[in-house]
Amino acid sequence: MTKKAIALLSGGMDSVTAAAMVKKQGYDIYALTVSYGQRHAREIESAKRLAIWLGAKEHEVVDLPISRLLRSSLMNPEEDVTSDEKTIGKKIPATYVPGRNAILLAIAAAWAESIGAEAIVMGVNVVDYSGYPDCGQNFIDAFSNLVKVSTRGGMEGHPIEILTPITKMSKADIVRKGTELGVPFKETWSCYKGGGEPCGVCDSCILRKKGFSAVGIPDPAISKTSSKK
Amino acid sequence: MTKKAIALLSGGMDSVTAAAMVKKQGYDIYALTVSYGQRHAREIESAKRLAIWLGAKEHEVVDLPISRLLRSSLMNPEEDVTSDEKTIGKKIPATYVPGRNAILLAIAAAWAESIGAEAIVMGVNVVDYSGYPDCGQNFIDAFSNLVKVSTRGGMEGHPIEILTPITKMSKADIVRKGTELGVPFKETWSCYKGGGEPCGVCDSCILRKKGFSAVGIPDPAISKTSSKK
Repeated sequence: MTKKAIALLSGGMDSVTAAAMVKKQGYDIYALTVSYGQRHAREIESAKRLAIWLGAKEHEVVDLPISRLLRSSLMNPEEDVTSDEKTIGKKIPATYVPGRNAILLAIAAAWAESIGAEAIVMGVNVVDYSGYPDCGQNFIDAFSNLVKVSTRGGMEGHPIEILTPITKMSKADIVRKGTELGVPFKETWSCYKGGGEPCGVCDSCILRKKGFSAVGIPDPAISKTSSKK
Repeated sequence: MTKKAIALLSGGMDSVTAAAMVKKQGYDIYALTVSYGQRHAREIESAKRLAIWLGAKEHEVVDLPISRLLRSSLMNPEEDVTSDEKTIGKKIPATYVPGRNAILLAIAAAWAESIGAEAIVMGVNVVDYSGYPDCGQNFIDAFSNLVKVSTRGGMEGHPIEILTPITKMSKADIVRKGTELGVPFKETWSCYKGGGEPCGVCDSCILRKKGFSAVGIPDPAISKTSSKK
């Protein structure tokens, strides 16, 4: 029987590349997108197209209306998300959404346990990233241990594996790997802002631009007429 | 400044007793109830009344529509939740909701981090319980570690504490402690079914009955005209 993996799909380029790598390993993909009230709802539309491209067996979009509980500039349309490349990864930025990845993984683990999925794949990355505390190997190890001790499968000796295939790749490596796998980067959305075109100035836009530049190919999601602020 | 604790409040007798104990230690209570599509929506009404009794500074009821992802008899009105006292705690029962407590704690931790709460209090119990894998000390330790490595506070040396004051108390101990603290047990709802009166035959009703019997006081939530199936 083909193994199943829950793929946390944000709509961005990292998560779809990670999912495509795991699919290539032979897993059936069950895509999961959690809409936690972030203002870049544009990502959800991207996630839907990417799930179809991945050939996901199912794609669940879960609405988690907790934005009122959280304090993060990603949730607040008033706050500036403009970044400075020099400070990326050096401190926890204002765009950090408290506890986001733990919530995402907890929901993914619940679904995984329900359908008997062997793995969860997540596009966390510790190289070209924003310095969030819930992206590193310590976090993944701690969550793997949680799943091991608190699920039926874990207690029966077959815990759900947390796969993070791009964790140590640079953004350029991700662009290369995604291109090799045919990932439709045109459909991915990385910008922290929710406009019609990427802003070009947030952490996420800066890191993405750096990745495509390093590989020397144009970013297909950026139209030639885009106004780069 | 008074310390803050997020109290996970289900509407049942365990969580409110745990919250009352932590309040007595001097914490301000921020109550959190997650409605995950369980059929005993009756619990939510109880939780609201109990939050008021606790004098909670805030009470957030979060709607988490993930029942379609999960497989559990608690979610399925067709399935029988009737239990047998002899088997309680011996195996993982059908009423187990996969990953529930990890999701609840992850949301609580996110809120705690957002408002600078020092603690989360949860009414998990390993004595008179249903044998769910996500109630034991291993689970709590694993989650505490997760919070330690993946939150701003944890990285800065003041991780959120997970308080589980009733974890080793019997149901009778909980009845005694709650009575001492004035917990309005009449307002609590324990039954896995959602009817007007507790069913009396599910795990939760059986354990509750056992607790009140052992202390030798009547359960104020059971009306004298209740039909005990």
